[in-house]
Amino acid sequence: QSTVTLFGLVDLNVTNTSAGSKTGVGDLTTMNDGTVNGMNGSRWGVRVAEDLGNGLKAGAVLESGLLADNGTQAQGGRAFGRQAFLSLSSAAAGEVRLGRQYILSDSVLGMSNPFGNALTLNPGTGVTNMGKALPMFLNAPRADNIVQYQTPSFGGFQAAVQAAPGEGSADRFHGVKLGFASGPAAAALSYEWNKSRTTGDNVNKSLTLAANYNFGSFKLLGGLQRNKDLAANSGNGAFVVTAAPVVTTTSTFTVTKSSGYTFGAELPVDKFLFGLNYSKVKYESAGSANADLGKVALGARYGLSKNTFLYSSFSVATGDLKDYISQKRVVQAGLRTAF
Amino acid sequence: QSTVTLFGLVDLNVTNTSAGSKTGVGDLTTMNDGTVNGMNGSRWGVRVAEDLGNGLKAGAVLESGLLADNGTQAQGGRAFGRQAFLSLSSAAAGEVRLGRQYILSDSVLGMSNPFGNALTLNPGTGVTNMGKALPMFLNAPRADNIVQYQTPSFGGFQAAVQAAPGEGSADRFHGVKLGFASGPAAAALSYEWNKSRTTGDNVNKSLTLAANYNFGSFKLLGGLQRNKDLAANSGNGAFVVTAAPVVTTTSTFTVTKSSGYTFGAELPVDKFLFGLNYSKVKYESAGSANADLGKVALGARYGLSKNTFLYSSFSVATGDLKDYISQKRVVQAGLRTAF
Amino acid sequence: QSTVTLFGLVDLNVTNTSAGSKTGVGDLTTMNDGTVNGMNGSRWGVRVAEDLGNGLKAGAVLESGLLADNGTQAQGGRAFGRQAFLSLSSAAAGEVRLGRQYILSDSVLGMSNPFGNALTLNPGTGVTNMGKALPMFLNAPRADNIVQYQTPSFGGFQAAVQAAPGEGSADRFHGVKLGFASGPAAAALSYEWNKSRTTGDNVNKSLTLAANYNFGSFKLLGGLQRNKDLAANSGNGAFVVTAAPVVTTTSTFTVTKSSGYTFGAELPVDKFLFGLNYSKVKYESAGSANADLGKVALGARYGLSKNTFLYSSFSVATGDLKDYISQKRVVQAGLRTAF
Repeated sequence: QSTVTLFGLVDLNVTNTSAGSKTGVGDLTTMNDGTVNGMNGSRWGVRVAEDLGNGLKAGAVLESGLLADNGTQAQGGRAFGRQAFLSLSSAAAGEVRLGRQYILSDSVLGMSNPFGNALTLNPGTGVTNMGKALPMFLNAPRADNIVQYQTPSFGGFQAAVQAAPGEGSADRFHGVKLGFASGPAAAALSYEWNKSRTTGDNVNKSLTLAANYNFGSFKLLGGLQRNKDLAANSGNGAFVVTAAPVVTTTSTFTVTKSSGYTFGAELPVDKFLFGLNYSKVKYESAGSANADLGKVALGARYGLSKNTFLYSSFSVATGDLKDYISQKRVVQAGLRTAF
Repeated sequence: QSTVTLFGLVDLNVTNTSAGSKTGVGDLTTMNDGTVNGMNGSRWGVRVAEDLGNGLKAGAVLESGLLADNGTQAQGGRAFGRQAFLSLSSAAAGEVRLGRQYILSDSVLGMSNPFGNALTLNPGTGVTNMGKALPMFLNAPRADNIVQYQTPSFGGFQAAVQAAPGEGSADRFHGVKLGFASGPAAAALSYEWNKSRTTGDNVNKSLTLAANYNFGSFKLLGGLQRNKDLAANSGNGAFVVTAAPVVTTTSTFTVTKSSGYTFGAELPVDKFLFGLNYSKVKYESAGSANADLGKVALGARYGLSKNTFLYSSFSVATGDLKDYISQKRVVQAGLRTAF
Repeated sequence: QSTVTLFGLVDLNVTNTSAGSKTGVGDLTTMNDGTVNGMNGSRWGVRVAEDLGNGLKAGAVLESGLLADNGTQAQGGRAFGRQAFLSLSSAAAGEVRLGRQYILSDSVLGMSNPFGNALTLNPGTGVTNMGKALPMFLNAPRADNIVQYQTPSFGGFQAAVQAAPGEGSADRFHGVKLGFASGPAAAALSYEWNKSRTTGDNVNKSLTLAANYNFGSFKLLGGLQRNKDLAANSGNGAFVVTAAPVVTTTSTFTVTKSSGYTFGAELPVDKFLFGLNYSKVKYESAGSANADLGKVALGARYGLSKNTFLYSSFSVATGDLKDYISQKRVVQAGLRTAF
């Protein structure tokens, strides 16, 4: 007999964005779904678990993302764009998963910043650079056609591997992850890459590291990311833009390499959780061009219940590109409930 | 703990439409979803309610419209095009809602006609005028990005305000509503308008009034709508067509103003509910051109249960435009079940 | 009171396809949703049943197909592309259904082959013939706007009729079915056709026959299909391609007629079910051109539980077209769970 759970979440916020002086763009006030700088993207889904006996379990998740500000489908119109996978698992042998899934760097990145890839503190949130999308930390955060194997936990250590065949316009994708958790300390690293259909070379190599330590009254978090051989038109895994990102300032260049770090702290006070962090990314061309972009962010959430939160956050851009992006200053406040 | 309810409705009918003599279009028999002249549009959704203590409640509704005749998504392909919102409320302080919601005129209009904006009696159902969509009463009936505040009821009176920032191609939207209900009598009015991004002027001003009185063995219902300064390309709120409507007859003109009235009666007989009404709209250009269009409609539904109904209705167009529309005569019968 | 059931299924497989020598296409390994040669297409849905008293029942099914390998909507993006219908039924009078439904030949075809239109044994699975879609047995398998009436069972016999008005670009569709089931024996036939909007002629005439007999330790299954007057642009019912299929070999021609047969056996062994079959279709032009295409297929599934199966299958093409198709050899293995 299968256990079926209907679950979901609605997250909406009102955001004011001030653009950099060189962009020619004014201030903007919008209502956004939580997927844009909120706690979580709005969604609904079904989770299935079945005990097959002998310690073997089958499972499935269908998770559909939506934008609650206008009722449209998220993830580019995919019906179940957040997750759609099947699993077989046992406590002794680990778990195999097939389907559309989070790539491994997403959970690594989530350990590096307060609130876990949320609010304006998320180092994985890209910017609009002179009208073009420019990622900060790379974070797909999902890929299609993935076969994943995750080991059981051995004394706090756990490893996972992912591979997806190249299909259609997507290159073959690979990922490995090693994680460690014990008491107040946690750390993880992932390495992911594509194999180019056209050249046969390994491209879009992305290394992500994160660690955090809970001192009880507060928690410190930090992480690094190094990306090399960024190539256009790969369309799978960590790097899903259809063209290599271009930094557009007085000197425009195509990014082939980027590296970033993030560090911050989380501070729980009664029903509040406060977070503060700083993230910085350096973009480099195949030649000698480079530019950097940073972000200082502060956020707080207040728990109305276990499921329902009021939240607010603020960020200010720093670095070479700060005046060339539409999100120089972002301030927002929102409400989120889960079920 | 949240209470989660899965709900929905399927409504299908077979319709025969006779076009006016000047249209060059013949008769047509089609199967339609309830969204076309049925009792209700087909849908499924999830309703969430959470008691936060101290009289405060959180809520969320995700409601997805579909066309059951062909299985496609309704509301132009939006995943949750009917409703997607979050709320915080208390009996003492009223309710705040964020997200995609019904605009206020929809519920006002619903009080003005038998069956509540359903069957061929709905004065909010537009027509096809020489191949172009022409609204009768304006009724969006929903808008994106809305912040709504609704007061508690004070001795039968209740007020609500809505505002949505202009985003993308949509102008800023505003609405106010005042309603009254006491025993057999109910009345309401709404006023809604856009602020044009291009001119800064207030446009698409729409005033809707409705009242009904239940005499016990029957109910009388009626309403008015006045629309002024209709402007193209607003795309939010009551007026969502991308261009101002054009009346096409021997003298074609762009509508900048329209006014209409509707009145009718509901008569319950055992498991039947009968309804009859007349609606008329006058279209005016910025100059002196004008034309009118009316509709006499008769309908009935039969309750197989509290959830399931057989229904049928009939309408005949009147006025200057009656021979220039594809829906000169409409007759239909259908089945609807809710869960 | 209505009974509401949330149900669904996730099916994923990894497939290796070898193309024929004349296609210029290489081998391909892909992850596919079950809709491509799996046990079943992934889906979720809601089933509603309501007892109206006096033996009368209302029902509704909303069934949404998805591709779990990439999270997209199946059935060309339709929200409830699998099924969306309403029904009224009684044991004495039979059942009426309105909406998007399976056409009658689908269940007939399902009786003709092991696993019921699944795995690589499905004779209704089309091929890619020099880059163009070419059906084998015609199997829509669904149509829009259908009114269906199904009789009660009389001594094992049951009949059904379907009709759908021509709407938009779809021709009017008609179907009749007669089925028989008694103890170990079952047989059925369906006949379906369109009435062309342009010529008024009956076109796309499709006759499907199937029978099977369960000998206890194994089951034999077989069927036939005859298709005549295949016409382009019909878009409803059994034949939904927008143009008549074209066989592309050294002699390219448009198919106006096709005929096929399939036979095979199912063998249950403990938790395994094995299946083997052979299917062959002959394509003919309006002139004297013709070509044939066959398929030998072998498959097995293993029940991890009543809901969850591991499966694998293999097929090899035969006949004139075997070197001109992308699916000359297909081998796959997958996992499927239902809830």
